[in-house]
Amino acid sequence: MEYENVKKEEIAIFKSIVDSERVSTGESILEIHSKDESFHTRCISEVVIFPKSSDEVSKVLNLANERRIPVTPWGAGTSLEGNPMPCMGGIVLDMQEMNRILEEREGDFQVVVEPGVVYKELNKRFSKKGLFFPPDPGAPATVGGMVANNASGVQTLKYGATKDYVMRLEVVLPTGEIINIGTNAVKSSSGYDLCRLFTGSEGTLGVITQITLRLAPLPSHFTAVLVNFNSVEDATRSIYQIMCTGIVPAALEFLDSNVIEAINIYKNTRLEENPTLFMEFHGSNETGLKEELSLIEEICASNGSSLYEAGIGRKERDRLWEARYDTFESMKNANRGMDIIIIDTAVPLSKYPEMVDFARNESLSKGIKGYVFGHAGSGNLHMGLIKDPADKKQGETGMRVNDAIVKYAIDLGGTATGEHGVGIGKRKFMTHEHGVSLEIMKRIKTTLDPNGIMNPGKIFF
Amino acid sequence: MEYENVKKEEIAIFKSIVDSERVSTGESILEIHSKDESFHTRCISEVVIFPKSSDEVSKVLNLANERRIPVTPWGAGTSLEGNPMPCMGGIVLDMQEMNRILEEREGDFQVVVEPGVVYKELNKRFSKKGLFFPPDPGAPATVGGMVANNASGVQTLKYGATKDYVMRLEVVLPTGEIINIGTNAVKSSSGYDLCRLFTGSEGTLGVITQITLRLAPLPSHFTAVLVNFNSVEDATRSIYQIMCTGIVPAALEFLDSNVIEAINIYKNTRLEENPTLFMEFHGSNETGLKEELSLIEEICASNGSSLYEAGIGRKERDRLWEARYDTFESMKNANRGMDIIIIDTAVPLSKYPEMVDFARNESLSKGIKGYVFGHAGSGNLHMGLIKDPADKKQGETGMRVNDAIVKYAIDLGGTATGEHGVGIGKRKFMTHEHGVSLEIMKRIKTTLDPNGIMNPGKIFF
Repeated sequence: MEYENVKKEEIAIFKSIVDSERVSTGESILEIHSKDESFHTRCISEVVIFPKSSDEVSKVLNLANERRIPVTPWGAGTSLEGNPMPCMGGIVLDMQEMNRILEEREGDFQVVVEPGVVYKELNKRFSKKGLFFPPDPGAPATVGGMVANNASGVQTLKYGATKDYVMRLEVVLPTGEIINIGTNAVKSSSGYDLCRLFTGSEGTLGVITQITLRLAPLPSHFTAVLVNFNSVEDATRSIYQIMCTGIVPAALEFLDSNVIEAINIYKNTRLEENPTLFMEFHGSNETGLKEELSLIEEICASNGSSLYEAGIGRKERDRLWEARYDTFESMKNANRGMDIIIIDTAVPLSKYPEMVDFARNESLSKGIKGYVFGHAGSGNLHMGLIKDPADKKQGETGMRVNDAIVKYAIDLGGTATGEHGVGIGKRKFMTHEHGVSLEIMKRIKTTLDPNGIMNPGKIFF
Repeated sequence: MEYENVKKEEIAIFKSIVDSERVSTGESILEIHSKDESFHTRCISEVVIFPKSSDEVSKVLNLANERRIPVTPWGAGTSLEGNPMPCMGGIVLDMQEMNRILEEREGDFQVVVEPGVVYKELNKRFSKKGLFFPPDPGAPATVGGMVANNASGVQTLKYGATKDYVMRLEVVLPTGEIINIGTNAVKSSSGYDLCRLFTGSEGTLGVITQITLRLAPLPSHFTAVLVNFNSVEDATRSIYQIMCTGIVPAALEFLDSNVIEAINIYKNTRLEENPTLFMEFHGSNETGLKEELSLIEEICASNGSSLYEAGIGRKERDRLWEARYDTFESMKNANRGMDIIIIDTAVPLSKYPEMVDFARNESLSKGIKGYVFGHAGSGNLHMGLIKDPADKKQGETGMRVNDAIVKYAIDLGGTATGEHGVGIGKRKFMTHEHGVSLEIMKRIKTTLDPNGIMNPGKIFF
């Protein structure tokens, strides 16, 4: 694809569409929109536009499409694969000013929002009504960004990923056409599932301007559990055995001793620096939960767990999960000035022990410091690989370790990305993962975006 | 689109591809493949082919595509919207000989099957291993047909529809190209969700030749419940209040007194002929279930339930559910020689009482006998409208009632089809439901099937 630069004349038109103060070519604004939380090299756009309505988005896209100017939508910039970085220059469409909650349909457990709403704010608001939007990536992501990347997090094991909560979408296509897809009914077999096609498409097919989310009732009872193991093998074996019981924990997180150490320093906690499982269980009554927990305890004990803290109180539980959410910050804190390559593979459950084993050995044997953690119950393995940006050789070794781990996951029947999306960093694995079906994705992309203006350089090369 | 008839020369080629005994032009075979369980007028194909491998499917499609011959895949013929009926003649591809279970991956709660496997057989086989494939349309459907139509049933409320269980697919495209899509990992954000695009596409994009399904652990404890109400309003109000508790029943079925009457005759049961809820609850232990039930009982009692049978034993429970599954047969039995128009709308939960009310009034006021039932907890309303095939005027009135009810559901934010698919019968509502986004579906169809050979006349006109 060939693209055009943004001309002065076009800037003037954009200013007439959205007001001049919402069109910026200032260096600091361009800089802020040049890099997400990943380690990828920054990319500078030519202009950042802050639309306030789908109509404005439509007019901007229409012109961009006609003039072949790349358009990259931007949420909160908390993504980890360079997903909203403007690889090919052009326009960044910062969606954060479209941040209204448009309709609270709590009678249907639904809410209609604009894409710039931050999910944590949404959950704060709905907690009084006993409802929540369960996918929880941790970082203060916008709902639009979560839909674009099909984000998920610690509670996805029980509650599902973002894709499982998207009921309707308003999307502006590259031509400027505005379409509404999906239904408010929880069941439907009516034609192709377009909502699911746009969810996780990382802004490569159009711009999402309105989202109807399903909400879940807040659990009336919950318990958090912390278990310490003598070895990684004991921990991963326990994960598998727990998942075979049929009990579905709300969360089942694995953290290796390096991660616990980093958390202890950053959060001033005093957790045992051993392979650890953080778990949470939700239920509609306490007696039922207690019976579940006794079975879990039995499994952990049979694998030599050295500590089992069940029924951690609300306050201690919040502190624990906050620590888990701050894993990334803890790693950054323990490795100031370093780059962190974040691995995000997922494998079939039975392969999780093997996957963890391979990932640890691979980094150890190549001399790259690694932090292993992840949403173990879903087979989702994260790993932070530390590299010095000034040490080119170490950087290359780090990337080789990364590549070997991702390829191993795919060869186990898994995926290059469990929840962060493809962005820039995972493009190179797409043929290995999808084979000829990648071609089908490309054909769909070309059908909906013939000029290739939408977030070019993502998912596909 | 213009299509060609199947020529003698082509029959000879098909016989060389799949063996001559698996290519049939016999009248009785064509007849069997001319109509599913719906009331739509039969359509005769020119040849029925029974492939045994994806390679055979590929060669047949390749020739059909080159010669512009329509191809309609066929599962068990249990669908209710004419989905596998060969509207445009050509080839019916009966997939029932591809019926092997290829790989039992119970360690990952997964199984790989060919499309002709009947889901009831699959569940019989896996019940010994404590696993099951939850979507349960009732009729002895094939897995391939269920994937094509995104089938679901009574337990979808808790466990989800077929689409929620499809992990990987092998699909033969109209060109004959064989693609593999999806992943064995339970989480993925890797590119466009092609599995979800093909699931529910009713054979209009390609032929599914292999399916990897996720399985769920069989619940260790369950209770069935039967509740009788004095009025439909009391029943639908209870449904809504139950769903607001946050407790998710495995099944929450509504049946009006007409349905109960038909079941009593057909199944020789002695159920009270009042508006009734059938419910089932699953859990990992008994104490937890009991607490849930006491809350449910309280809600039903507050709405004047006249009978509450909780904890119905295994045998009685199986008999009850068998009766529910035989609703369609019971209606046919009570109305011999009549056609039954089956309505399958779904609406947002808060609109369910209003929807039931409208549907009943609409049929009553137009003098069309109606049976109201459905997967109430999911907002899915079924209704059987009885019409005499010899009475043209009644037939027209019946269709007008059908159309009014479906349109009303769409206007409430619902869908024309909760689980039966679009097929022939729901095409006329597609523009009303999807607006301009129907055009996007058509563009995708054209991209993947440029000659329009795959199941023409379904979903779209």
